[in-house]
Amino acid sequence: MLGMPAAPRSAQAFAFVAGARDGQARTGTFHTPHGAVPTPAFMPVGTRASVKGVRPDELHALGTRMLLANTYHLALRPGAELVRELGGLHRFMGWEGPILTDSGGYQIFSLEALVAIDEEGATLRSVVDGKKLRFTPEHVMALERDLGADVIMALDHCPSDPTERARVEDATERTHRWLARCVTAWQAAGGLAGGQALFGIVQGGAFDDLRARSVEAVTAHELAGYAIGGVSVGEDRAAMRRAVRAATPLLPAGKPRYLMGVGTPLDLYDAVRAGVDLFDCVTPTRHGRNHQAFTWEGRLNLRNARHERDERPLEEDCDCPACRTVSRAYLRHLAMCGEMLAGVLLTQHNLRFFHRCMEAMRTAIERGELARLEARIERAQGRTGA
Amino acid sequence: MLGMPAAPRSAQAFAFVAGARDGQARTGTFHTPHGAVPTPAFMPVGTRASVKGVRPDELHALGTRMLLANTYHLALRPGAELVRELGGLHRFMGWEGPILTDSGGYQIFSLEALVAIDEEGATLRSVVDGKKLRFTPEHVMALERDLGADVIMALDHCPSDPTERARVEDATERTHRWLARCVTAWQAAGGLAGGQALFGIVQGGAFDDLRARSVEAVTAHELAGYAIGGVSVGEDRAAMRRAVRAATPLLPAGKPRYLMGVGTPLDLYDAVRAGVDLFDCVTPTRHGRNHQAFTWEGRLNLRNARHERDERPLEEDCDCPACRTVSRAYLRHLAMCGEMLAGVLLTQHNLRFFHRCMEAMRTAIERGELARLEARIERAQGRTGA
Repeated sequence: MLGMPAAPRSAQAFAFVAGARDGQARTGTFHTPHGAVPTPAFMPVGTRASVKGVRPDELHALGTRMLLANTYHLALRPGAELVRELGGLHRFMGWEGPILTDSGGYQIFSLEALVAIDEEGATLRSVVDGKKLRFTPEHVMALERDLGADVIMALDHCPSDPTERARVEDATERTHRWLARCVTAWQAAGGLAGGQALFGIVQGGAFDDLRARSVEAVTAHELAGYAIGGVSVGEDRAAMRRAVRAATPLLPAGKPRYLMGVGTPLDLYDAVRAGVDLFDCVTPTRHGRNHQAFTWEGRLNLRNARHERDERPLEEDCDCPACRTVSRAYLRHLAMCGEMLAGVLLTQHNLRFFHRCMEAMRTAIERGELARLEARIERAQGRTGA
Repeated sequence: MLGMPAAPRSAQAFAFVAGARDGQARTGTFHTPHGAVPTPAFMPVGTRASVKGVRPDELHALGTRMLLANTYHLALRPGAELVRELGGLHRFMGWEGPILTDSGGYQIFSLEALVAIDEEGATLRSVVDGKKLRFTPEHVMALERDLGADVIMALDHCPSDPTERARVEDATERTHRWLARCVTAWQAAGGLAGGQALFGIVQGGAFDDLRARSVEAVTAHELAGYAIGGVSVGEDRAAMRRAVRAATPLLPAGKPRYLMGVGTPLDLYDAVRAGVDLFDCVTPTRHGRNHQAFTWEGRLNLRNARHERDERPLEEDCDCPACRTVSRAYLRHLAMCGEMLAGVLLTQHNLRFFHRCMEAMRTAIERGELARLEARIERAQGRTGA
């Protein structure tokens, strides 16, 4: 494996060992069968078992220690059974570190794939060929077992509008009933001894009391970790922060807390302050392909004319392949020509930036100085020229 | 520079030092201000100062020792003056090895950009914005000086139909007159002492006598190397081989011989046997993006269903990033999903394959066994499943 060290096998698979604390924020180490993950950690998204344009050995060099793949998309192509036949996701994609598979719950409700939902499960259409598919908790557990990730997510019902109470309540209660069925299916397959940790997902939309009830229902199951879902689905930032702050401190301190699908550097910072440990988001990779670069001085649009003659790297102190090799002027040239190397290099830079953000947060927590990082993160969040 | 060793500065810039011989074929070393190139050598095409999807340090690791960039495309975007301002092509694209710029002659006649041709030069349209541009020998020399490659090509008139004698003769004679003007402009800028070697281009289409006349006219100028142009422009393979075999042995043995825009592994082999030293072609990179992989057992179409469950790498004995990391099944999955990593990995494999072909030819020439390589190259050329 190209420069990627073999993962150390953990003696205490799926244990979360807490480190320093700073307010609600904490550092920690999440142990998995494919290695340990220092937290807070950001997981790049490899939807179809590929982080777009980046090889696994490159991901490791950029600081990635765990990544996410998507059950819905992989179930469509190439099929979960085929991935199992080929040795599971790690071997299939050549990534020896920890992997988490998302259950498809979010895709069901975000890709307009949903045909119908009932108590038994969801009927949806394939985005590949339009065929009808059936996703039930039991089916999703089987799919995720075939894919073979370290962490598998329960099937949840993610309400599309987090502010319409009756619908949120309905989806949240269904999420709890589906979780119970996921737990039963997962335990029947061996539970933790089967080599996979099941995480439950808290819903509850924008309603603090529903979030609290959901935490109670989800944590009633003894699981290796818990996630907060249904945020960053269209609500404004204040609503998102309130939901995260309402749910996170209620989750057990001894387990990793995973905020799904979030977000920008400032979103990550806010959530870390609330006590979140794990994140995933397409932000760094998608923005990279769209020629946007994250820096500590704000976001750069590499198509902007002001970069035309700029011989500086994206960031002087960044050790990513783009910053070590080429100038903003060259990246702008690639972006203007639509050269694929632009997306490849900017994706790598953005992933390095997100991992550096998490490193900075971990260090700040250890020093009890997380609050002092806020101004720096706010500056990174800004647009320095759209 | 990411893992790319600083280029050794040659004491004898632009000298070609012959090595072993096997019939007309020879090995050699072409010295340039940015390092020495063992020949026969294949130059990947970096049209817009980027070999699509591959970083310079990766190119070096794949075995690339010299690459090509395109004057016409770079003159349009970002402009040759801007590249000069930014330190020239090497610094601009982060490649410390030798670079050759093609003059734009081929693009003028292949991109349907030509508006009119006259004795003074060519009027053409920009493929970017449709604006009219004027390319004269003097202008092209100035553009190539600004770009700053080690080897610069003279502006030639490449006949679109290599079989229509009157038009070929006309274009060939014009190429000679334009070469004389290129030589004058290049010498006025310092000649070899200016740090750039000008190569002249032999035309003559499918006519042996015109090829011979063109060799005579072009080699009347004392230059550091000579190229054969106007092949692989639509004629059949037999015609191409005849043109190469007619012209190559007439070129001075003490100078590198460069066959422009060729070709497949078998084309390269045929030309090496005729005494050619340098090649460039989009074949490995374009085929890679189109999900075709070159192997010693023939070409693979990674979209073919037969790769669906194939756990083997593209080639067992290949040391490229794709072969060291993932299976044919995974590459097929990426190709079927249109994931950009498919093109990135297959491009890298194909470049490694082309460089390995050249390495095999160099070794075979040293052993006097080049003829025995033919069956192996023919097998590589085949399609094992389209």
